[in-house]
Amino acid sequence: MQIAKVRGTVVSTHKEPTLRGVKLLLVQFIDEEGQLLPKYEVAGDQVGAGLDEWVLISRGSAARQMEGSEKRPIDAMVVAIIDTVNVENRLLYSKKEQYR
Amino acid sequence: MQIAKVRGTVVSTHKEPTLRGVKLLLVQFIDEEGQLLPKYEVAGDQVGAGLDEWVLISRGSAARQMEGSEKRPIDAMVVAIIDTVNVENRLLYSKKEQYR
Amino acid sequence: MQIAKVRGTVVSTHKEPTLRGVKLLLVQFIDEEGQLLPKYEVAGDQVGAGLDEWVLISRGSAARQMEGSEKRPIDAMVVAIIDTVNVENRLLYSKKEQYR
Amino acid sequence: MQIAKVRGTVVSTHKEPTLRGVKLLLVQFIDEEGQLLPKYEVAGDQVGAGLDEWVLISRGSAARQMEGSEKRPIDAMVVAIIDTVNVENRLLYSKKEQYR
Amino acid sequence: MQIAKVRGTVVSTHKEPTLRGVKLLLVQFIDEEGQLLPKYEVAGDQVGAGLDEWVLISRGSAARQMEGSEKRPIDAMVVAIIDTVNVENRLLYSKKEQYR
Repeated sequence: MQIAKVRGTVVSTHKEPTLRGVKLLLVQFIDEEGQLLPKYEVAGDQVGAGLDEWVLISRGSAARQMEGSEKRPIDAMVVAIIDTVNVENRLLYSKKEQYR
Repeated sequence: MQIAKVRGTVVSTHKEPTLRGVKLLLVQFIDEEGQLLPKYEVAGDQVGAGLDEWVLISRGSAARQMEGSEKRPIDAMVVAIIDTVNVENRLLYSKKEQYR
Repeated sequence: MQIAKVRGTVVSTHKEPTLRGVKLLLVQFIDEEGQLLPKYEVAGDQVGAGLDEWVLISRGSAARQMEGSEKRPIDAMVVAIIDTVNVENRLLYSKKEQYR
Repeated sequence: MQIAKVRGTVVSTHKEPTLRGVKLLLVQFIDEEGQLLPKYEVAGDQVGAGLDEWVLISRGSAARQMEGSEKRPIDAMVVAIIDTVNVENRLLYSKKEQYR
Repeated sequence: MQIAKVRGTVVSTHKEPTLRGVKLLLVQFIDEEGQLLPKYEVAGDQVGAGLDEWVLISRGSAARQMEGSEKRPIDAMVVAIIDTVNVENRLLYSKKEQYR
């Protein structure tokens, strides 16, 4: 999985019928130093992530292993909202710290 | 999924029989600033996207999760025509604005 | 899918039994300007593509969605021989033009 | 599969229910000279790898081929803790040597 | 599929049980000129490839389409030992020539 930051949303009314009701988030990937990478993805979201939150993205067929999405043409999905990221026992990111 | 712009079409008469009747679009990927990337894909289209429209592309096995395509050797598919893309609450793209 | 040009062949006698009888083509990818990219693939071919022809390559599990290949360890397959590629209504490639 | 070094952990309480109980490791990929690459992955771990250990990572649908993970939205998994890596009969890495 | 050269081996005793008995080779990819690329993979081997041999690697779910490997968490597999590679009717590689 990859760590990404929620940067925005994508809206479409003219789409594959099975995508109706699926929220589409624009997320940007983050490197192991916590910096934004020039790489983004549009991911389905059933977890309810908010703008600027760090999330975990699963891609490929894994993205469909969520209740109700098994038959959806989705290749990227938010699977978790991240609380903390530790690198070599150093706290790289903490959701609480972001909102103090 | 990735955001892309419809740039053209690919036509083939000598092909895998199950691909008959599938429209093939040449799409070029767009970055998070809305600029064209030097990366393209040939995607199947069952949604009916037009030239220059921004679309959402699903790749891998997700591309087959569309009615009638489950057994087709397709690894990229247009799954939506995009209305708007918002980044940090700023409108990056709006289909309506394009055609005013 | 990706557009590629047939550049050569790969032959192997010592291989996974289910690959017997499968023709293996060396193809090189082409960018949206029609230029060869420094990226190639070895793809199975059940369509009968010839040297220098432009073809469409499907990769991943899509490559197995061809009659007889469902259980083969193949991750790239020629799925079509391309007749024309149009970009912004400009003819980028035409098979007929190549052989006039 | 890819060789990677365990660099840290990712913790999430607000996640896809099926991910509960799955340990998430932050791993960084290693090249064929044994140097860290600027590429990381978040991988599930059912093998019990420790910080700084070299591990083998499987990605894509292969990551779900582990007992209990078949239906989890996981696209990367630790599948082995590496004892030795030999390149051209030269010992590139030995777990024992690391802890002498 | 990709062409690669066998460069070494990876050994692990502490691993996912279904990987027991699977030989793991370190292979390095080769470009269309026959030069080594700075990209490697660890691949399962049921074909019996030797050091320095050119092999064909299948990745993704295709890597599991080998007898006994359907349920193994393997995402890359040696599927053939290459005899010859021809590019534009020029012999780029011949196994026999290597061992004359």
